[in-house]
Amino acid sequence: MTQPRRIKVKGLATPDNVLVIGSVAYDSIVTPHETGERILGGSASYACLAASYFAPPHIVGVVGHDFRDRDRKKLAKRGIDLSGLQLDETGRTFAWRGRYHENYNRRDTEDLQLNVFERFQPRLTELQQAMPYVMLGNIRPDLQLAVLNQLTAPKFVLVDTIDIWIETQREKLSEVMRRSDLLVVNDSEAAKLTGQTNVIVAGQHLRQHGCRTVIIKKGEHGAVLFHEEGLFTLPAFPVTELRDPTGAGDSFAGALLGYLAAAGKTDFASLRQAMVYGTAVASLTVEAFSTDRLAKSGCTEIKNRRKELLKMTKA
Amino acid sequence: MTQPRRIKVKGLATPDNVLVIGSVAYDSIVTPHETGERILGGSASYACLAASYFAPPHIVGVVGHDFRDRDRKKLAKRGIDLSGLQLDETGRTFAWRGRYHENYNRRDTEDLQLNVFERFQPRLTELQQAMPYVMLGNIRPDLQLAVLNQLTAPKFVLVDTIDIWIETQREKLSEVMRRSDLLVVNDSEAAKLTGQTNVIVAGQHLRQHGCRTVIIKKGEHGAVLFHEEGLFTLPAFPVTELRDPTGAGDSFAGALLGYLAAAGKTDFASLRQAMVYGTAVASLTVEAFSTDRLAKSGCTEIKNRRKELLKMTKA
Repeated sequence: MTQPRRIKVKGLATPDNVLVIGSVAYDSIVTPHETGERILGGSASYACLAASYFAPPHIVGVVGHDFRDRDRKKLAKRGIDLSGLQLDETGRTFAWRGRYHENYNRRDTEDLQLNVFERFQPRLTELQQAMPYVMLGNIRPDLQLAVLNQLTAPKFVLVDTIDIWIETQREKLSEVMRRSDLLVVNDSEAAKLTGQTNVIVAGQHLRQHGCRTVIIKKGEHGAVLFHEEGLFTLPAFPVTELRDPTGAGDSFAGALLGYLAAAGKTDFASLRQAMVYGTAVASLTVEAFSTDRLAKSGCTEIKNRRKELLKMTKA
Repeated sequence: MTQPRRIKVKGLATPDNVLVIGSVAYDSIVTPHETGERILGGSASYACLAASYFAPPHIVGVVGHDFRDRDRKKLAKRGIDLSGLQLDETGRTFAWRGRYHENYNRRDTEDLQLNVFERFQPRLTELQQAMPYVMLGNIRPDLQLAVLNQLTAPKFVLVDTIDIWIETQREKLSEVMRRSDLLVVNDSEAAKLTGQTNVIVAGQHLRQHGCRTVIIKKGEHGAVLFHEEGLFTLPAFPVTELRDPTGAGDSFAGALLGYLAAAGKTDFASLRQAMVYGTAVASLTVEAFSTDRLAKSGCTEIKNRRKELLKMTKA
């Protein structure tokens, strides 16, 4: 397999490996302006594509008999190792149907079919178990935990989640959070986890009771990093042609982790740089439906957006 | 009169004068946790107090027979020239009653008594007419225009407004905006002015059709500067003990203009620095009711918050 183009960052001579567990899905999405039917989605798809611009991603997940060959190719083309993507012939691929409201700042889940994910049990190969950078993408916390339990040499574990797991698997989720290095959630999830609506208070609370380091995403308002060495705030990239926000958070987290795996460092300064790259990549995701723009974006475009972000935040 | 303490910034040996027209009011405020009855407020009060940390402010406004001597003293103590604050013995001071909702992100005006403002006509002295830095604080656009028409040597004019004037005096407001150097509005006002809910699009639109330079405030999410040389984004200072958001925007604008008057420059870099100071000062305003914290804040506290802001935005 030919290697896809990657962004060279200061760090390791060869980027470390990134293991991503999460959903691979067919999304049906309605926005105020367009609709997309059964397009490739899922937290692992977005995160792996985003990470692929920095380091080699390895996906852990499951798809059903309806998974299209062209989607497999789309992922493989960006150098994503699909050997951990199980094929369950007995069912259909996880499917989600969502509708975005005016301004895209709220969405409703109209239908959710777990399908093959109901029976999914992640089994990591010995090679995968030894991978240093791990993203526990949005998926049932017991599955995140099953992956965590198989890891033999984790260097940095990032965990993401959504409302439904906070409501239904709170204890397992808490264990995952405690055993991870970085929690990445959005503001409403942070509020649900802590009972605090002030983002700053919620972030501080999560650091004390959840995860050592926390990032709270605020959509168009950017993201805040809560680290023992201090706060770091970053605006969103100024997108003027928002088409589909799905996957923005997963792209952000995937690119962030990919950058760390390429840099070979996870300190405060590296995390800040990783967030800038994550934000640049997420801004590409939302400018098209599905993973289209993300899969095709050039490294130059990501680097340019990073530069622009750094410029617009410099007092 | 003794000079109040000011923050020394790189710039002029002696800060230039700042002229502020706006409301001086008695506010009655209900928040989810507290209430305040007939406390000193109004756009000009907040803006002048904020500006006073950088340059000498001169207020233009009107109060009624009920205006308290201790409030006059509160303003004078910070070196604010009150010679342009007319006293209209025939009526009461402008009064506003507002209620903040849970999370403080929405407020309702429950009562508004223009009182002496109904008959107010700003008359500038020759000295005031020649002042270089001018804030047209939130007030009826025809009054802002009356001030604008009396200026003989404006160097930099900042204009602020609110929803009601966008709805009722759109044409006069447009003229004020066109003739000013910097428009400072919040996101909902920007949306009302342009019909665009995307902040970036709204800001670009305002620059093309309104004012040369524009700042859109996003409350707890910070502010964005739209300038011909580029964008600049700044988060809000991380306040964890929000008590009363009233006057935050006026404090931001007042401190911003005060800084420019002290720096003696209004270029892109100076505007960025001015926003950092404005944000630091506004964060003090919201930590107490009325102008209490703002009037008493030390220069050191403002400088420390500025430093912290710069640190937390540095990638």
